[in-house]
Amino acid sequence: LIESLASLPGIGPKSASRLAFHLLKQDANGLTEFGRRISELRTNLVTCATCHNIASESPCVICRDPGRDKSLLCVVEDALDVVALERSGQFRGRYHLQGGVLSPLEGIGPEQLKLRELEERVSKEGFKEVILALNPTVEGEATAHFVSKRLQQALSTQKNGVSPLKITRLAHGLPTGADLEYADETTLAHALEGRTVSSTQ
Amino acid sequence: LIESLASLPGIGPKSASRLAFHLLKQDANGLTEFGRRISELRTNLVTCATCHNIASESPCVICRDPGRDKSLLCVVEDALDVVALERSGQFRGRYHLQGGVLSPLEGIGPEQLKLRELEERVSKEGFKEVILALNPTVEGEATAHFVSKRLQQALSTQKNGVSPLKITRLAHGLPTGADLEYADETTLAHALEGRTVSSTQ
Repeated sequence: LIESLASLPGIGPKSASRLAFHLLKQDANGLTEFGRRISELRTNLVTCATCHNIASESPCVICRDPGRDKSLLCVVEDALDVVALERSGQFRGRYHLQGGVLSPLEGIGPEQLKLRELEERVSKEGFKEVILALNPTVEGEATAHFVSKRLQQALSTQKNGVSPLKITRLAHGLPTGADLEYADETTLAHALEGRTVSSTQ
Repeated sequence: LIESLASLPGIGPKSASRLAFHLLKQDANGLTEFGRRISELRTNLVTCATCHNIASESPCVICRDPGRDKSLLCVVEDALDVVALERSGQFRGRYHLQGGVLSPLEGIGPEQLKLRELEERVSKEGFKEVILALNPTVEGEATAHFVSKRLQQALSTQKNGVSPLKITRLAHGLPTGADLEYADETTLAHALEGRTVSSTQ
């Protein structure tokens, strides 16, 4: 058990022993349940055929929910981003997990991402807006640019005209609670560039 | 000397001794110069009568610079914010330091800030846009709301009409290099709310 625990990221051999002895003090029922959850982790989970999120069934609860906005699609990198966006409570549309960002150095090209599936969904499901919610990093920016161009090409060849689809990006700027004097140059530059008219006006 | 050094923020008695002994090893000329700079710090600096920034003369270099945009005013809290914005290289207008944010608990009301001076400048200098570049904190938000309202009132009573002045705020959103999965809920909510149309569209 110590060996298994030590193989987890961020847990060294000493922490692993400590965890094992902590588990030793728990009651048997709790341990059986804990063990079962770990054992069945992979067998009980599937990938949603629509959005490619990890779910207990396919289509997943989000894709099946009739209360969610069908005209709004949010493209994210992976499942943790969905968790973060759901936590914010601000997004009530659908998701599409592309499974990473373009990274030529790591051998991740357009074929490794769920882009064909994305194009298919966009052409079939009639979204009004696609939000490219990729990380504000160099790779994320480059990927968003690429995906945005590809979606437009795919739509224009299909419909022989200007696409009615709006492609948007998350706002870049100062995070809540930040301090101007400690903000990095690029963030400040983005915050200035994307400034908005004061709400009292 | 150790006592003086220990009175600086973040420097305890041990660091103070270490610094003092480090200074003891420097050559005399360097020390004289260093001491002179500290001694003359207050005597050589004045507050710019226009923007209220700390400067070596009044009006300061920024207020005197004819190359800077006279139609754009950036309202900040203090001198460190000016340093940060100048570092970003994105802002080429004028500044106004209001000297803090509203904080009833600390006894900082509108009278403690340079708001009357701000109203005067706005009505005299003919700015086209005032950017309220206050920190994205609760106090900063509240202050920006207050200042924005007050500027509008001051302008409308003066000109008996709709003011041509644009009052803007810095963009709120994800800082550069951030990771969606670690972003706090409010920042993500702001990033979603303030989303922009993709540049390739």
